[in-house]
Amino acid sequence: MQNNIKRKIILDCDPGHDDAIAILLAAGNPNIELVGITTVAGNAEVDKTTKNALKVCEIAGTDVPVYKGCAHPLIRRRETAPSIHGDSGMDGPVLPEPERTSTDVHAVDFIIQKLMESDRDVSLVPVAPLTNIAMAMRKEPAILSKIQEIVLMGGGTFGNWTPAAEFNIFVDAEAAKVVFESGVPITMMGLDLTHQALATAEVCRRIAQIDNHAGMFVSELLEFFRQTYHDVFGFEHPPVHDVCGVAYCIDPSVVKTKKVRVDIETKGEFTYGMTAVDLLGTTCREPNVNFAVELDHTKFWNLVIQALKNLSK
Amino acid sequence: MQNNIKRKIILDCDPGHDDAIAILLAAGNPNIELVGITTVAGNAEVDKTTKNALKVCEIAGTDVPVYKGCAHPLIRRRETAPSIHGDSGMDGPVLPEPERTSTDVHAVDFIIQKLMESDRDVSLVPVAPLTNIAMAMRKEPAILSKIQEIVLMGGGTFGNWTPAAEFNIFVDAEAAKVVFESGVPITMMGLDLTHQALATAEVCRRIAQIDNHAGMFVSELLEFFRQTYHDVFGFEHPPVHDVCGVAYCIDPSVVKTKKVRVDIETKGEFTYGMTAVDLLGTTCREPNVNFAVELDHTKFWNLVIQALKNLSK
Amino acid sequence: MQNNIKRKIILDCDPGHDDAIAILLAAGNPNIELVGITTVAGNAEVDKTTKNALKVCEIAGTDVPVYKGCAHPLIRRRETAPSIHGDSGMDGPVLPEPERTSTDVHAVDFIIQKLMESDRDVSLVPVAPLTNIAMAMRKEPAILSKIQEIVLMGGGTFGNWTPAAEFNIFVDAEAAKVVFESGVPITMMGLDLTHQALATAEVCRRIAQIDNHAGMFVSELLEFFRQTYHDVFGFEHPPVHDVCGVAYCIDPSVVKTKKVRVDIETKGEFTYGMTAVDLLGTTCREPNVNFAVELDHTKFWNLVIQALKNLSK
Amino acid sequence: MQNNIKRKIILDCDPGHDDAIAILLAAGNPNIELVGITTVAGNAEVDKTTKNALKVCEIAGTDVPVYKGCAHPLIRRRETAPSIHGDSGMDGPVLPEPERTSTDVHAVDFIIQKLMESDRDVSLVPVAPLTNIAMAMRKEPAILSKIQEIVLMGGGTFGNWTPAAEFNIFVDAEAAKVVFESGVPITMMGLDLTHQALATAEVCRRIAQIDNHAGMFVSELLEFFRQTYHDVFGFEHPPVHDVCGVAYCIDPSVVKTKKVRVDIETKGEFTYGMTAVDLLGTTCREPNVNFAVELDHTKFWNLVIQALKNLSK
Repeated sequence: MQNNIKRKIILDCDPGHDDAIAILLAAGNPNIELVGITTVAGNAEVDKTTKNALKVCEIAGTDVPVYKGCAHPLIRRRETAPSIHGDSGMDGPVLPEPERTSTDVHAVDFIIQKLMESDRDVSLVPVAPLTNIAMAMRKEPAILSKIQEIVLMGGGTFGNWTPAAEFNIFVDAEAAKVVFESGVPITMMGLDLTHQALATAEVCRRIAQIDNHAGMFVSELLEFFRQTYHDVFGFEHPPVHDVCGVAYCIDPSVVKTKKVRVDIETKGEFTYGMTAVDLLGTTCREPNVNFAVELDHTKFWNLVIQALKNLSK
Repeated sequence: MQNNIKRKIILDCDPGHDDAIAILLAAGNPNIELVGITTVAGNAEVDKTTKNALKVCEIAGTDVPVYKGCAHPLIRRRETAPSIHGDSGMDGPVLPEPERTSTDVHAVDFIIQKLMESDRDVSLVPVAPLTNIAMAMRKEPAILSKIQEIVLMGGGTFGNWTPAAEFNIFVDAEAAKVVFESGVPITMMGLDLTHQALATAEVCRRIAQIDNHAGMFVSELLEFFRQTYHDVFGFEHPPVHDVCGVAYCIDPSVVKTKKVRVDIETKGEFTYGMTAVDLLGTTCREPNVNFAVELDHTKFWNLVIQALKNLSK
Repeated sequence: MQNNIKRKIILDCDPGHDDAIAILLAAGNPNIELVGITTVAGNAEVDKTTKNALKVCEIAGTDVPVYKGCAHPLIRRRETAPSIHGDSGMDGPVLPEPERTSTDVHAVDFIIQKLMESDRDVSLVPVAPLTNIAMAMRKEPAILSKIQEIVLMGGGTFGNWTPAAEFNIFVDAEAAKVVFESGVPITMMGLDLTHQALATAEVCRRIAQIDNHAGMFVSELLEFFRQTYHDVFGFEHPPVHDVCGVAYCIDPSVVKTKKVRVDIETKGEFTYGMTAVDLLGTTCREPNVNFAVELDHTKFWNLVIQALKNLSK
Repeated sequence: MQNNIKRKIILDCDPGHDDAIAILLAAGNPNIELVGITTVAGNAEVDKTTKNALKVCEIAGTDVPVYKGCAHPLIRRRETAPSIHGDSGMDGPVLPEPERTSTDVHAVDFIIQKLMESDRDVSLVPVAPLTNIAMAMRKEPAILSKIQEIVLMGGGTFGNWTPAAEFNIFVDAEAAKVVFESGVPITMMGLDLTHQALATAEVCRRIAQIDNHAGMFVSELLEFFRQTYHDVFGFEHPPVHDVCGVAYCIDPSVVKTKKVRVDIETKGEFTYGMTAVDLLGTTCREPNVNFAVELDHTKFWNLVIQALKNLSK
């Protein structure tokens, strides 16, 4: 694989168990050029998700810069998910304090700067509330025509935080509205897709057999995640939502998609943060989203496991 | 089957192709005592749905009284569904003008009167917008403790009129809110269930072989309905939504249900009329609905076909 | 004054201190033919407001029929105003139980029946939440073209129950939406007008000098009302809101009005129940309301005091 | 007047006729230290408002840096006011292109940087949509405790852009919500106050007699503004809204204020962008705003006219 065909991505995340695996996949796969990691409040406060991102980078053995982003959603009060990810945002594995700190540039400014100097060959991969992305679009609207693609994890035709809303969109639905109405090409990994990305017992066995820090770390992450997903949602196996976005960037054939109209509900009493996905075409509006509907489970986990093996540490 | 174990229902409808079959099932099944049919604006204007109900009664050979109800939703402007049911609300079969007219009592008053004189042994089976039911609840709150059960067709975890909303609830979401918050026991046949009630080719063959007016009439209804469901939604076979409610009243084992919390969205920009169904229990609120999740397709169609055969004409 | 020029009104009310005075004005003025009083939940529960209306009728010496109406708003949960009107809805004067009871016809049906048999010469004067009026419009849409005029007390450019909403509209904003969008001619006595209808010390002195039951009763009402308006709102003198509607029917020159567009807010987070009054014409929409802006205080109170004197008891 | 008691302000504006006069007042009054001017989309697009600000600075003879800010509201689509301010945002006076350009730092970053290095002695004076202020609060939450006071022009108990909403708040109500819920001390110059700041005929005569560029420029501004306010709103004299904020910073005794709770409506159908001002205390919530209710017209215009005279050019 030659360097010039690597796909450049900025991974915007809030680690987060599945975020951590997404970082490792991006770091371990040779087809991805991870130009930067940006963090945001989501699964936990931004100071915690930033520290978690730095810890994961050390496990991955990567010195990709990490940029701390927004501590609050655009409009709403902050909401985090300790019931799912523990108080640290990445409970389970016990890791040393990271040696690095985040880079002294705001995530929003890094995103703007990197996109403005790019040749429309950088994609954004937000797997967290879309605060940083929306802030960047509003601070510098010229980035809109510079984004190659937004590959995001969020939403779906059903919810996991409320009956109608998925956590990432619910936490900052106004930011999601900005992004989904931006006109930028969007590929959306919603719950319809990510609930297919289950870390089955067989997957966990294969990961347990990987003989490096990354493998052991992921095993411990999945052990914790399996427990909370079982206790809170009654799932047998935990879904690794955020990993789907990176996998799609590596190999789009991992998921089947459908062009649809998606609108973000910001006014609803019971549906705030819902992504209204027009699968039946009832709105007669132009599609704005490439909506992921089906995962190639085998190909997906093969990608992840190979990337973990590639990590030297 | 003895008379004293018949289940008493008031069928509130807006025929409507599937409403028509629901009437025939209620009229032809020996376990149902159809104490009255009430009509409402929905698939078409109320004058049309009332005339259609009367026509269907003549085919069924029943003299059950028909009461005309509300011409407008509680709050919103009226919306009908000519794209699905044709301009008459029941396009396809050509029928003579009905000889009867509707009874000169308003549907809302009939519902109130029948319930108030009952011994909590009358169920309401609304398979249309819930305007009449909500109006009755507001005009005479004492009926709340008199309703045995409300078995309704409406809503679902997805929509067919907008990406989030099903037609019956969308047309009068405020009425739905009144009903779902009433505290009355509700069993809900949403799209999740009714999209399993497909009139497959084999079902249609069996109906075509019934040697009476009702069989021929239903065949013609399904022919028209098949076409519009194909053209509008891309369905191979049409779902006979409204029939599910009556079938459940005859034999609850026709559907599997789950107790859940359901809230009606009346404020949303893109989700007005959605039934937010809390399948994962994220709201931690008390269930208010017995939500139908799985249909016994064979048992269901056997019920319908036997009832059609029972009709003499 | 000849009988054939009396203005026929149905007074829809929730007594209520000012409602009581409105009834007395209607009963005591020779130019009004009070064809019926309908009651509704508002200042207190409907059983209480009905009993209060009957008590006031006895003081007025009138046998006008009283019809009990809706116990709940169309959609929302009921809210009453004991902080303003006391627990009975008409605290202050101590009155015997009424000898009459309400007529055994629902207020909604009375309104429909009376309008349908009329020659477009009956006006509705709702000085309470608009539940009965909206219910009647929805139960029998044919009344819309039969209503001479709706002269209502409600709303304003500011609120008294929330910063944006007046009590009558707030309690059932969905009903208000139905009425304001009905196309029927509406004259609106909002707070802008009714806060001019103050029972000043001089007014109270004049009323105290009236030598009959009605005068004493009104004096006691105003004494109580003065206290709650002082304690809750910091007013020096209490405004007799509901009386303005009846006064306008007797003599339109009592108020100056302006044709404007008024819309009812039913979605707002902080503005539910607001009447958005387009005084500057920014919406460019057709006026639907004759909006009262200025009261002739002297003429108004002269009308009231003369009517009280006319009452024989 | 000694330098060390000057009040430091950042003026955030969208010139705009009244914005222009606000800049001149800040530049010409010796008690104000104008540490920077930031611009935003509002009365016109941000490129236009920035150019207008630079032009006004040249007339004022000030070299205060001008920082260009956000081109779009946080969430909504952009809306401008050519009907009031003309296509340029400052139609009327014909001015040469400015010699300076805006400083190459984003307004949001300037606000953050200046506040973070301050000793809580810098006030923000936004007289435009609150986009820049909200963006700064979200990008760097640490500024919240660094802002001395926010003295803003916006909102009121009535509207001028819709029946319920004033232009500045309407254009970016989500930004306003962020600011009003921030906990920072806010003094609010709403329409209730600014409609008292009328440029009467006598005021205009006094300004016309000022013998410098600024006086002539303001005369021309007011001539244009008088015409649009007459044509659009039917006003006899134009109100110079934005000037009130600067005047209050110079001398708080120019206005009387009242502590009240103010909430921003972002969900309403007819009331989006309304400031719900709790003058009667019905919400029982803690005040968050110092609400301006009465202007000392004489003192106000004396301040303005003296400042214009102070400008040398």
